Amino acid sequence: MLSKNDIKNIKSLEQKKFRTEKGLFIAEGHKTVLELIGKFSCTLLAATQDWLDGHKNIQAERIEAVTADELKRASLLQNPQDVLAVFRIPKNDINLADTALNNLVLALDDVQDPGNLGTIIRLADWFGIKDVFCSKGTADIYNPKAVQATMGALARVKVHYTDLKQSIKELPDNVPVYGTFLEGEIIYDARLSANGVIIMGNEGNGITPEIKQSVTHKLYIPNWPQGAPTSESLNVAIATAIVCSEFRRR
Amino acid sequence: MLSKNDIKNIKSLEQKKFRTEKGLFIAEGHKTVLELIGKFSCTLLAATQDWLDGHKNIQAERIEAVTADELKRASLLQNPQDVLAVFRIPKNDINLADTALNNLVLALDDVQDPGNLGTIIRLADWFGIKDVFCSKGTADIYNPKAVQATMGALARVKVHYTDLKQSIKELPDNVPVYGTFLEGEIIYDARLSANGVIIMGNEGNGITPEIKQSVTHKLYIPNWPQGAPTSESLNVAIATAIVCSEFRRR
Repeated sequence: MLSKNDIKNIKSLEQKKFRTEKGLFIAEGHKTVLELIGKFSCTLLAATQDWLDGHKNIQAERIEAVTADELKRASLLQNPQDVLAVFRIPKNDINLADTALNNLVLALDDVQDPGNLGTIIRLADWFGIKDVFCSKGTADIYNPKAVQATMGALARVKVHYTDLKQSIKELPDNVPVYGTFLEGEIIYDARLSANGVIIMGNEGNGITPEIKQSVTHKLYIPNWPQGAPTSESLNVAIATAIVCSEFRRR
Repeated sequence: MLSKNDIKNIKSLEQKKFRTEKGLFIAEGHKTVLELIGKFSCTLLAATQDWLDGHKNIQAERIEAVTADELKRASLLQNPQDVLAVFRIPKNDINLADTALNNLVLALDDVQDPGNLGTIIRLADWFGIKDVFCSKGTADIYNPKAVQATMGALARVKVHYTDLKQSIKELPDNVPVYGTFLEGEIIYDARLSANGVIIMGNEGNGITPEIKQSVTHKLYIPNWPQGAPTSESLNVAIATAIVCSEFRRR
């Protein structure tokens, strides 16, 4: 059973202020919870008795059987599922330069929408990108909407918040930095390396000018047929997907 | 000025029932409204005086200058922008078989999320796909969230609702039908034609079995490295983007 206070505490995790203060985040739904439960430390798991009966080996600091009605009161979703869990936010402390020397990494420069962010983490997982570095202005990956959109990919992709401008500036010369620009080289023909940083910018404003200066390879996803009247741009998660697919196609 | 009744009517367009009954939909924001205004018949345009002063040539059956406060009351957005408009839902009456004989078209088989749907229309526009056919179970493109996510691409991409199972069954033999499946051919190596139907399925369940039988070319977007543990699947809009990009790369 969940107390009134439990429900209040869970609900508070919708707000970044309380997530930061408590170092906790919430995940909901069968698939997401099962993906995360071995990877993050779980302080509270609340599920229907049916669900618990089907998952007897599940481990958490505290496990509560709840009714559908209790779950509804605690849930941040419109249609709550059978289970929700509260996890500890991990401390991921690695350096962009070290990581990008031997791996392909994504860097998000003020991506605003939690749904876009979560979708990007999910596709990063698909394309074997293990680390995503975010500017401090990027949406919070522990926002419940972002967690939901990752569909459990957060279990495999590490998300780091950093002073992105500074981190990019400190990259050694042998780390290529990619970004998409209207004046870039057509991505289908470009030489793409197996390591480096792919920068994706804000939904409205793209990549910030200071970071743009550090981009060593400007890429362009051409529309079709080229020159035809079309949308101004692609959604940031869509553009990220096409760029990652091209890197991995080679 | 907007009357109480005006605001009630605008708000009602959040619900499909009233959109269908009235044959109207709502679009908000500078960019989206400007894209749509020449292409759809506009029954009401409500904007701040500043916005109207900057757009003197705009034409609509009725134009109202409104205060930010009025706009806020009429808007379906959390952060309303300077302008909203009500448009007539057009009648797009074309046939899948005829269109797919000479063009590449998308067919959506019960895509549920309005945001995914809108994002797909936006990327279809980018990749020069002029017609998107939707099963009756697909989200409504005139849902305000879907309209918003198209970012104006609805001005160039026609969306048709149809009995998709029947339409697919009636396709002539010389129209290729593509779909993505885990057991498909790796898309990067597959032969892709310049016409045909690309089917994208429901977020949870994929392509319905009946339609799957009509797929002539099964494709697969490989994860990287192949065989590594990863997410179960890609978001449907992300998968659509990668498929469309591959078709247009050739």
